[in-house]
Amino acid sequence: AFPGDPEAIRGHTRQVSAEYRALMMSRAHRAAGRVALASRPLLAALPRANPAGAARSLAPTRAAVAPRARPMRRPVEPEVATGCWPRSLSGSAGISTDRVGVEVSDHVATVTLQDQKTRNCLSTTMMTDLHDALVKLEADPHVKVVVLAHTGKVFSSGHNLKELQLAQETTGDTKAIFETCNKLMLKVRSSRLPVIASISGFATAAGCQLAATADMCIAGEGATFSTPGVSIGLFCHTPGVALGRAVGYKAAMHMLLTGDIITAEQGVRCGLVNEVVPADALAEHTRSVALKIAKAPSAVIGLGKRTFYEQMAHGDVAEAYRYAGGVMQDNMSYPDAREGIGAFIDKRPPQWTDAGL
Amino acid sequence: AFPGDPEAIRGHTRQVSAEYRALMMSRAHRAAGRVALASRPLLAALPRANPAGAARSLAPTRAAVAPRARPMRRPVEPEVATGCWPRSLSGSAGISTDRVGVEVSDHVATVTLQDQKTRNCLSTTMMTDLHDALVKLEADPHVKVVVLAHTGKVFSSGHNLKELQLAQETTGDTKAIFETCNKLMLKVRSSRLPVIASISGFATAAGCQLAATADMCIAGEGATFSTPGVSIGLFCHTPGVALGRAVGYKAAMHMLLTGDIITAEQGVRCGLVNEVVPADALAEHTRSVALKIAKAPSAVIGLGKRTFYEQMAHGDVAEAYRYAGGVMQDNMSYPDAREGIGAFIDKRPPQWTDAGL
Amino acid sequence: AFPGDPEAIRGHTRQVSAEYRALMMSRAHRAAGRVALASRPLLAALPRANPAGAARSLAPTRAAVAPRARPMRRPVEPEVATGCWPRSLSGSAGISTDRVGVEVSDHVATVTLQDQKTRNCLSTTMMTDLHDALVKLEADPHVKVVVLAHTGKVFSSGHNLKELQLAQETTGDTKAIFETCNKLMLKVRSSRLPVIASISGFATAAGCQLAATADMCIAGEGATFSTPGVSIGLFCHTPGVALGRAVGYKAAMHMLLTGDIITAEQGVRCGLVNEVVPADALAEHTRSVALKIAKAPSAVIGLGKRTFYEQMAHGDVAEAYRYAGGVMQDNMSYPDAREGIGAFIDKRPPQWTDAGL
Repeated sequence: AFPGDPEAIRGHTRQVSAEYRALMMSRAHRAAGRVALASRPLLAALPRANPAGAARSLAPTRAAVAPRARPMRRPVEPEVATGCWPRSLSGSAGISTDRVGVEVSDHVATVTLQDQKTRNCLSTTMMTDLHDALVKLEADPHVKVVVLAHTGKVFSSGHNLKELQLAQETTGDTKAIFETCNKLMLKVRSSRLPVIASISGFATAAGCQLAATADMCIAGEGATFSTPGVSIGLFCHTPGVALGRAVGYKAAMHMLLTGDIITAEQGVRCGLVNEVVPADALAEHTRSVALKIAKAPSAVIGLGKRTFYEQMAHGDVAEAYRYAGGVMQDNMSYPDAREGIGAFIDKRPPQWTDAGL
Repeated sequence: AFPGDPEAIRGHTRQVSAEYRALMMSRAHRAAGRVALASRPLLAALPRANPAGAARSLAPTRAAVAPRARPMRRPVEPEVATGCWPRSLSGSAGISTDRVGVEVSDHVATVTLQDQKTRNCLSTTMMTDLHDALVKLEADPHVKVVVLAHTGKVFSSGHNLKELQLAQETTGDTKAIFETCNKLMLKVRSSRLPVIASISGFATAAGCQLAATADMCIAGEGATFSTPGVSIGLFCHTPGVALGRAVGYKAAMHMLLTGDIITAEQGVRCGLVNEVVPADALAEHTRSVALKIAKAPSAVIGLGKRTFYEQMAHGDVAEAYRYAGGVMQDNMSYPDAREGIGAFIDKRPPQWTDAGL
Repeated sequence: AFPGDPEAIRGHTRQVSAEYRALMMSRAHRAAGRVALASRPLLAALPRANPAGAARSLAPTRAAVAPRARPMRRPVEPEVATGCWPRSLSGSAGISTDRVGVEVSDHVATVTLQDQKTRNCLSTTMMTDLHDALVKLEADPHVKVVVLAHTGKVFSSGHNLKELQLAQETTGDTKAIFETCNKLMLKVRSSRLPVIASISGFATAAGCQLAATADMCIAGEGATFSTPGVSIGLFCHTPGVALGRAVGYKAAMHMLLTGDIITAEQGVRCGLVNEVVPADALAEHTRSVALKIAKAPSAVIGLGKRTFYEQMAHGDVAEAYRYAGGVMQDNMSYPDAREGIGAFIDKRPPQWTDAGL
């Protein structure tokens, strides 16, 4: 085979695809398969008007109980950290940290950036906390969706500039910081769990990158986004990786070159934001989207998410189809595909097993 | 040359491009060159107010004769299959089947999904019928554009789930079904004929994929789109190939993860739909777009369509330009480029030969 | 290493990236480093209400002095060529030609297509003039942003058809013409200078390609865009390279297959245009955007622009992150990153040096 030989390239792609598929059938997925969740009855029991009623959280967020109708006057309440992950629910604990609150209810994990004194900056510690939370949640078969939320007026202000400055001035080496950031972003992408960013404040620089990297981004009115690295002499090169893929060339160049702040509505128009809702309906609406996704069998969602990003990496659409077509066959072998198709044909609700291949 | 050697990669690209170009100069195109169509006078004779008057169809669709003005009350009419391809026009016959009606007039082939009892599901038979129709139409030098239309309220409901279930339960092998689907989608892409999906109803799963794959998609008000595989445990992996490329990451992940139904207007905003028109003006408007494309020399359109998708597969824009620049030179050698440029300079209408290189 | 070996590919990418980075540290950037521009005070002195007051142009354009409020009746004025680049400012001269006017003030170079008798067609001479102007401006450390503007009602009508016809009829070889065009477009992309197209008229064929290729495109109301090659038998293959990347598949196929003219507002919706402003505010608004970009350190902007397009060429997002993450570290070593981050932390205005690595 000569370099660039189409057959060799195809063989390589098949090999990579096979590795991906092997990954899908890995321990976490097999583990998930042993837990029959029967999600639909559970969700059916969930009163639509007040989803928080079903949330088994030790420390529910204020937002989670916000009624759909907008109150005329909002009572002033202290913002509460939401870090407690009830041991009884998942058998896991200790994910929450000072900076990152983790709460799981009804298969939805809410990961809350809550380090307001630093405007939720992505220090190495914050990035590591977020990364580790995602890794642990992914390993928990009970968890099906992640919502990435925040307390305060800033979703995230991006890198910790003092930390960057210190690293540069002492060791001259900022490699570890940027690698930690890349690792976090790639974990959001590679996680079997769909990640929905739920943003009511300011997302800037690497914070904007996190919003752009999430599978979905739902914004409250008043949320804003920017990549203003140019104003501090440090271009938002890595945020551009996620931003460019979400919004295309012209909008990305506008944001990256000028540092201009865009609104949530502009974010919708350019593809950065999926939808905008009133700020006080954001938590509830995001939760309803997450619960909808959680109704589907989790192993199938995980397979779908990974396949989507994998096939999008193929420039050649025929190659993308070959890969995705192979995954279709694999998915047909999942117990839940058999169950789902059978239930659809028999006109009955499906009983998911959540088992992988 | 070592693996990844830029020169070797470029050589490979040149080789692939050469194969593409060779394809463009193939039999079908040479055949097309022998038919002087003088399309402009023909089209000029077409009364704008009633294009159906010029349609030489044995069984015209209701939609095709719909007046532009919306009637106050629509008379109830049985929906009529439109399968007959007049022998006298094209010298070909036998393309229409029970499921797929094919009608050609004024160089525009209307391929109508008309298997309403199955909600136009993409069974292997339906996919094969569609694929074969496209292949036969492509081979007919008279045909210049394909409109993909439908009778009933569903454009297509996607794969035939009973067929998938049966294959899985008997042989355990669904490979042939998904390969047939990929083959159909790739044929829409690789066909020398522009394919315009004209959708007034529901396009779901592989049906949505077909809409996303078409070169253009024009929708009537009320048309809807979704990829709801998650609800039956079978993620829309292959629809995601076309959807992701049409609408981008965030919108695709929204549709794929939630199965949400989007409207035609939302489809326009995210890039799935080119335009929305009143439902009863859809057929006529789509036809006017098709007729506009049919006015251009067909060999040039075919070259352009293939080059567009080929160059878009290059991540490296310099490589894309090198390829497309080479095609520009080839196109300059087409008789119709000489004619078209000459006519433009001389300020006279062109007389196309429709010949390839 | 076997063909397609991931390690070999990564090694190759690293090598290419290294070449890119080496380019960033090249002569032009080092030269730029020797000029301390202290741009902020200069810009702060610029009266917002009348930026033209600060423009040191020997022959200011009418547009540049247009007041923001729209006059009830516009006085008829001859359109004036704007070619003179004041020697005193930049130490360079002789960039302007009959077809292309170049004016520099406050670090913003305005390159004006002014060959109205040919509707600013992209003849080989025009393309060479534009290319050479970009090359010379890029070499001038004083220049930080390029605005691509035009006199008259046509931004550019695309290739010179008579020149193409002559080349085809005499030598049969149009290779040089299309290569010159590719070279121009790739220079817009590869230039260290952000290029903002500022369009108040008609941009068609290769003229539309130039608008699509620019990093940003700001349009006046009434501006229009099209790729009508099909009507002259010469498909807009190369314009499709830029158009497809800016607007996506469906919108590009619509424009390329039909030749339809789209408005500036439609251009915004599909991603071709960043924003639309009243026609008589276009020059001033474009200038304000350019001045905003010019406030950032130029070496950082150049690094950012190149990195953006380079990383977008990676199908594999992990590869894109590895590359962009490496550039982040490099950027941290720029004096202006140290200065910018320090100034931000110290809450003082930064004093840029504009030096590269």
